[in-house]
Amino acid sequence: NINSDRLWNSLMEMAKIGGTEKGGCRRLALTDLDKQGRELYIKWAEEAGCTVKVDQVGNIFCTRPGTDNSLPPVGTGSHLDTQPSGGKFDGVFGVLSGLEVVRSLNDHGIKTKHPIEISVWTNEEGSRFAPAMMGSGVVSGRFSLQEILDTTDVDGVRLGDELERIGFAGSEPAGNRAYHAFFETHIEQGPYLEAENKQIGVVTGGQGQRWFNATVTGRESHAGTTPMHLRNDALLATTKLIQKIEAIAKAHPPGCGTVGFVQVGPNSRNTIPGEVSISIDMRHPNDDELTQMDSELKAYVEQLTAEDGVEIQLDPFWYYEPIPFDENCISAVRNATQALGYSHMDIIAGAGHDACYVSDFAPTSMIFTPCLNGISHNEIESTTPEECEAGCSVLLNAMLTMAEV
Amino acid sequence: NINSDRLWNSLMEMAKIGGTEKGGCRRLALTDLDKQGRELYIKWAEEAGCTVKVDQVGNIFCTRPGTDNSLPPVGTGSHLDTQPSGGKFDGVFGVLSGLEVVRSLNDHGIKTKHPIEISVWTNEEGSRFAPAMMGSGVVSGRFSLQEILDTTDVDGVRLGDELERIGFAGSEPAGNRAYHAFFETHIEQGPYLEAENKQIGVVTGGQGQRWFNATVTGRESHAGTTPMHLRNDALLATTKLIQKIEAIAKAHPPGCGTVGFVQVGPNSRNTIPGEVSISIDMRHPNDDELTQMDSELKAYVEQLTAEDGVEIQLDPFWYYEPIPFDENCISAVRNATQALGYSHMDIIAGAGHDACYVSDFAPTSMIFTPCLNGISHNEIESTTPEECEAGCSVLLNAMLTMAEV
Ligand SMILES: NC(=O)NCCC(=O)O
Ligand SMILES: NC(=O)NCCC(=O)O
Repeated sequence: NINSDRLWNSLMEMAKIGGTEKGGCRRLALTDLDKQGRELYIKWAEEAGCTVKVDQVGNIFCTRPGTDNSLPPVGTGSHLDTQPSGGKFDGVFGVLSGLEVVRSLNDHGIKTKHPIEISVWTNEEGSRFAPAMMGSGVVSGRFSLQEILDTTDVDGVRLGDELERIGFAGSEPAGNRAYHAFFETHIEQGPYLEAENKQIGVVTGGQGQRWFNATVTGRESHAGTTPMHLRNDALLATTKLIQKIEAIAKAHPPGCGTVGFVQVGPNSRNTIPGEVSISIDMRHPNDDELTQMDSELKAYVEQLTAEDGVEIQLDPFWYYEPIPFDENCISAVRNATQALGYSHMDIIAGAGHDACYVSDFAPTSMIFTPCLNGISHNEIESTTPEECEAGCSVLLNAMLTMAEV
Repeated sequence: NINSDRLWNSLMEMAKIGGTEKGGCRRLALTDLDKQGRELYIKWAEEAGCTVKVDQVGNIFCTRPGTDNSLPPVGTGSHLDTQPSGGKFDGVFGVLSGLEVVRSLNDHGIKTKHPIEISVWTNEEGSRFAPAMMGSGVVSGRFSLQEILDTTDVDGVRLGDELERIGFAGSEPAGNRAYHAFFETHIEQGPYLEAENKQIGVVTGGQGQRWFNATVTGRESHAGTTPMHLRNDALLATTKLIQKIEAIAKAHPPGCGTVGFVQVGPNSRNTIPGEVSISIDMRHPNDDELTQMDSELKAYVEQLTAEDGVEIQLDPFWYYEPIPFDENCISAVRNATQALGYSHMDIIAGAGHDACYVSDFAPTSMIFTPCLNGISHNEIESTTPEECEAGCSVLLNAMLTMAEV
């Protein structure tokens, strides 16, 4: 049995670092607050007897020795960074339920054959620095270390410099990790578990994603003196593109299409916008459909360019295909759930998760728990101690099966 | 005769302060660069024998004495602040052609009965601090001094504090000015003079304007896990509002409708936008039509609120009705143009100008000169020494008529 109060109290304690007025959390990747969050977590992990290592991309690995340390560890973990107006649970729940597993094993004096390892992956959110899941992506080999270190935020600040600044540019090589099995607990962040009234989602895979940057260029001119028919308004053209992205997603259920980021130049109320940059996020659990959505977007960009006389630069800078998790790990989660008597359903992850990239180099699956009204990436994100307890208990059970007592 | 080279050289010299790579100018109101521009201008005005006064809102008044200084001055002037990506001429041409008039009168030893006064009005652009034409608006009584000093920019910096900081919070009361007549030279900023191949626009009035801030509130949630039909996307609703503003303007020719400023919250690529703030700028030379446009906007805001389930706050924070200029001043400009043999046409100002507010307390009109392709509020804004010479010569002639030699 895990200690549900301790898990909840740790979640609430961590949420104070970057805590917002509306009860959420703002702890962007590699900021001073991220540093504070990482340091608190490391203190807790050391108190629980773990050894701590940090790799070159800032991933943190905390290990509880097994009885045979020549064996690869059974891993769990997630991330401590949040959205700009994020909640208290997204990511943090996965890290702290890993810590609670270790603490519970200590409480009961349980020794495992395989070591147990909790990982904190750098910049999972992809909000301050894009794309997402950078730390796990470097370890999996999807990204090169150098390209990630050279990524800049919207103010031009380099990720590698921020890592140095907050003291998390570690010395462990970023890569070459092996796990006997890997499990990530996470709130669902969507509405399905709640709608079906299930306590646990047995995650069988993650949907595919395509991220783009688009820049629409028209011509700046005066808002009062430029007749409507002589305008080349980059913002008006962009509104059509944004609406088309919604239409494409709706034509491919259950696909998603989102524009979350907009930057207007010169952003002056009496100047017709000359340049607008937006982000585009497209997702689908079926790769053929996702490819189709991508083609429709590209075709529309051509059409809009011709119709509106704007220039559009479309940069498809991130893509990963839908990811199937490991059958054995999925079964381990399903069996643990049934053994503990929790209601459950199979589910596909709508969000990207570090587990998706860990799955490149280790047998992996995930454990989802419900969140209120399916809302995440919002300060009002909410879940209960009981829901967290259920997810963490399933994690403990599944890890023990793999790590062998 | 004015000295065309001197006028042009002064324009080019001033344009270096905030000069941009693309040949434009970025000298936002009450920044360090605005301070530098003001100081250079004051130096020039003092060298030309003017006395200099600064009022409480930072307006600068440079006076060349007349032979009877009990008479109200004949005034001219404009502004030195620019758009974020502005040109070299918008506003500056009006100030420096005033200076060139004084310099030319000095060259020829001409004494006028009325004093001549050149004014530099604070924050005409309305870009860093909204609304526009603040300095002239305070003097005219349209705005209270206090409300203007308390205005903040997008970063929350107070106008009054910036005035103090750059040393332009003067001691002259902001108000109670009297002019015998007032003329403002300005580039047209639109396409009509060029299209009609005319050298001078005799400006008979300014169109009306309505400015709004609108905030659309939906609900933040996750871009990958929130099904399309469960979203409350503030940005998608805003795209419809932006398109409607264009449609309203097009339905009321020659009205204009523009969204130049957009701020998205939280502006994170994988979070559905929960709040979007935009500016709205609507203009029409006919007040009834402008009122109609305003009603259509308000009706659509109601409709969109109901249809999309978003909240919309619409703040109509600035309005002024179309402004007719003074018949005598208009005639003085037309007569000067004819006397000098320039081709000309009557024209309504599409932009707001300080002259529009000066016209509240003094007989006023304006002199327009062409600009390349009608483009302004753009770094590529362009005009020629000959076009500037024509405008300044008409100004000298019209002012002399009023000031009496
Ligand atoms: N779990 C999560 O919110 N990840 C952020 C990356 C994504 O957008 O899917
Ligand atoms: N002249 C000029 O560009 N004024 C700015 C105020 C406006 O938007 O009309």
